[in-house]
Amino acid sequence: MTAFLFLILLLLAVVFAEVLTRLIKKLNRDLVLLHPFRSHQKRDEELKPFQNYLNLFANSLMIAMGREDIFYELNEKALKLEKEGKNIIRLNIGEPDYRVDKSIIKAAIKRLNEGNVKYGSAAGEYYLREKIACMLNTDTQDIVITPGSKFAIYSIMKNLLNKGDRIMVFAPCWPTYKLIAGDLGIKVCKLEMNEKWDIDTAILNEHMNNIKMIVVINPNNPTSSVLSNKRVREIVEIATDYNAWVLYDVAYADLAFQPVKKIVEDNVLLVDSFSKSFSLSGWRVGYVACNRDICKRLIKFNQITISCVPEFIQRAVFTGLEHKDKIVKKARKVYKERAVFAYRYLKRHVKVCMPCSGFYIFPHIGMDSVKLAFNLLEKGIAIAPGIVFGEKYNEYVRISLVRDLEVLKDSMSVMIDTINKTKSETI
Amino acid sequence: MTAFLFLILLLLAVVFAEVLTRLIKKLNRDLVLLHPFRSHQKRDEELKPFQNYLNLFANSLMIAMGREDIFYELNEKALKLEKEGKNIIRLNIGEPDYRVDKSIIKAAIKRLNEGNVKYGSAAGEYYLREKIACMLNTDTQDIVITPGSKFAIYSIMKNLLNKGDRIMVFAPCWPTYKLIAGDLGIKVCKLEMNEKWDIDTAILNEHMNNIKMIVVINPNNPTSSVLSNKRVREIVEIATDYNAWVLYDVAYADLAFQPVKKIVEDNVLLVDSFSKSFSLSGWRVGYVACNRDICKRLIKFNQITISCVPEFIQRAVFTGLEHKDKIVKKARKVYKERAVFAYRYLKRHVKVCMPCSGFYIFPHIGMDSVKLAFNLLEKGIAIAPGIVFGEKYNEYVRISLVRDLEVLKDSMSVMIDTINKTKSETI
Repeated sequence: MTAFLFLILLLLAVVFAEVLTRLIKKLNRDLVLLHPFRSHQKRDEELKPFQNYLNLFANSLMIAMGREDIFYELNEKALKLEKEGKNIIRLNIGEPDYRVDKSIIKAAIKRLNEGNVKYGSAAGEYYLREKIACMLNTDTQDIVITPGSKFAIYSIMKNLLNKGDRIMVFAPCWPTYKLIAGDLGIKVCKLEMNEKWDIDTAILNEHMNNIKMIVVINPNNPTSSVLSNKRVREIVEIATDYNAWVLYDVAYADLAFQPVKKIVEDNVLLVDSFSKSFSLSGWRVGYVACNRDICKRLIKFNQITISCVPEFIQRAVFTGLEHKDKIVKKARKVYKERAVFAYRYLKRHVKVCMPCSGFYIFPHIGMDSVKLAFNLLEKGIAIAPGIVFGEKYNEYVRISLVRDLEVLKDSMSVMIDTINKTKSETI
Repeated sequence: MTAFLFLILLLLAVVFAEVLTRLIKKLNRDLVLLHPFRSHQKRDEELKPFQNYLNLFANSLMIAMGREDIFYELNEKALKLEKEGKNIIRLNIGEPDYRVDKSIIKAAIKRLNEGNVKYGSAAGEYYLREKIACMLNTDTQDIVITPGSKFAIYSIMKNLLNKGDRIMVFAPCWPTYKLIAGDLGIKVCKLEMNEKWDIDTAILNEHMNNIKMIVVINPNNPTSSVLSNKRVREIVEIATDYNAWVLYDVAYADLAFQPVKKIVEDNVLLVDSFSKSFSLSGWRVGYVACNRDICKRLIKFNQITISCVPEFIQRAVFTGLEHKDKIVKKARKVYKERAVFAYRYLKRHVKVCMPCSGFYIFPHIGMDSVKLAFNLLEKGIAIAPGIVFGEKYNEYVRISLVRDLEVLKDSMSVMIDTINKTKSETI
């Protein structure tokens, strides 16, 4: 009997010792977390065992970005109506109406006529990379040509981030980032911009734990707002503090009504496109500028996916860059005229910020934007409902300023009438 | 004392019981494996806990495919020599010397002059998909246009396979498959082709465990051998038995000297390119034909990466397809003439098979191909060393038949001289 009791006591002691050991181990690691003098990288490593707890906690920050499916649904419907012979004013997509400069087309045609367009460099043609590098005041090796900036974004996220990593975007935000991240198993956190579409860097700083990349779209899509160079600098510094990348998407920078600096730094990945500034949307050409070690990885990815961007397209862009000031100045003038016109018209009826860049206006319409968008489509006008850019923006719409003033005026007039009618019906 | 002994005995009993329980559990699962009537899918699921053991076992089959880095190293050196002003006969890459048909260039130029090349469909333009579908006797929805067949291969592997999955390739094999698989964490198993570059399907059948996809390149790169339609059918049936995909790469099919059937079936993913048949290597355009549910996934991948293939390129290809018979017949004739010539010349000196398709010849040179390749490069001739296509093929070289007979003759003559000289030196 004594032996039996002794045995039970011993077993209990063993179990107790085991539990105690585990608790101490855990506690030890917890204490490490509170140590203020460790580097972020080291802390990250030590945090790994707790990733699951932290994940649960961080989910409150996670993005339910929006309903980008509605964007495609609406676009498909617009295309269907067009096929049925109906005339649709397409203000829903970011497609320039502006004709491509003749010099660009001529350069492409010249190369095609020469007839020997062969496999090119996976990095992009040297002359084009050199030209871009010169404009950005960096080295040719820091440039990689891609088939559009979207491919550049995909390549960067694929090659620099791992499944489960977190990126920070500022809402409202172009939905493609969420789609690409989703495909790669990358988690998207968001920070809402304030009502002037600016970013509160103090709040950003508070939410940087575990963030591996900050996405900055400047000028922004859909708001056409511009961040000051000072604000961009602050964001880059916060990223540096937290060992994070900045993906700096400047696809609209050349159409901004104030200077937007294109920066290339060690932890900054500059992504640019010729789709908007040169109206080359369907040609698929853009670039990344970043440190050359990262470039090498992006070039390898080009090698095993696209091989190269067609050389005649690169030749055309090169020619465009030689006339860049003239081409871009002209485009900016047209877009500014439209932006001012749209802003003046809309502000009499709804809450709206003056765009600081070409392309979009993002008014607050005070009603369900999905309902309005489908309603307007029946009347031959396509716009993008705000919910596409973030769940909080369902009472906004994005209007692409890609038609003449007359057409824009008529479209906005129909929109305002529809809004007023719907509102009065609801009352 | 008795109590102490009793305690020790009890502890031993507990440990023994635990070990026994675990063994029985494992045995139970092992027995399941031997059950002959279960479906492959079910068996796969049951195999999962043993993946690690099986991985160890299967590693003997794993491919140390080759040294594709040498291919790039050699190519870079060739480019460097060219830049220094040296004339290099580039028989190392699969770049047609054949001029693009005028109708193709004219069609592209016409669209460019119309000046409104906009974002196109992510699936590819309907008219081109319809045309291809018609040629393959399938539906338009089964076709997706991609920027080259390489992108198609990447997209298929990315979207249909998971990290750790295994694919089967037949060696010697175009090294890009290994590079793409490596990027996606997919494991590559190989089966050596026999000396007539044919596949022993009985051996294939024995090695299909855990294989998720069989890659069939027909005509093959680098051997330019062609699998009979019967053999392809057998491979598709084996794949069907094992619930595996067949990636059927027919980039050279239009240049084959005997008919190669392009098949579209439920578990077959047909990948084709216009780089070789239309000499459009630098234009980046190809397609996938497969069941429409898979197409939808590939289209979504296009949406978040490339957006679309430039419409003027698709228009050019469409025009090419309208004159396909004429264009391809002409190209085939030129390549056949070169293949016959090269074969007759080489077989007097080395072991070589007659190519069954345009583009490459793959002789056995009986010496270190890397040494030969760098040696020849000094003499102004670039060829691809065999090790690039598999570790067993270091005594082979791939010669691209992309120059006139005269140039080919001179190059082969220099090559044979160099081989003989090196061999006599070694003796």
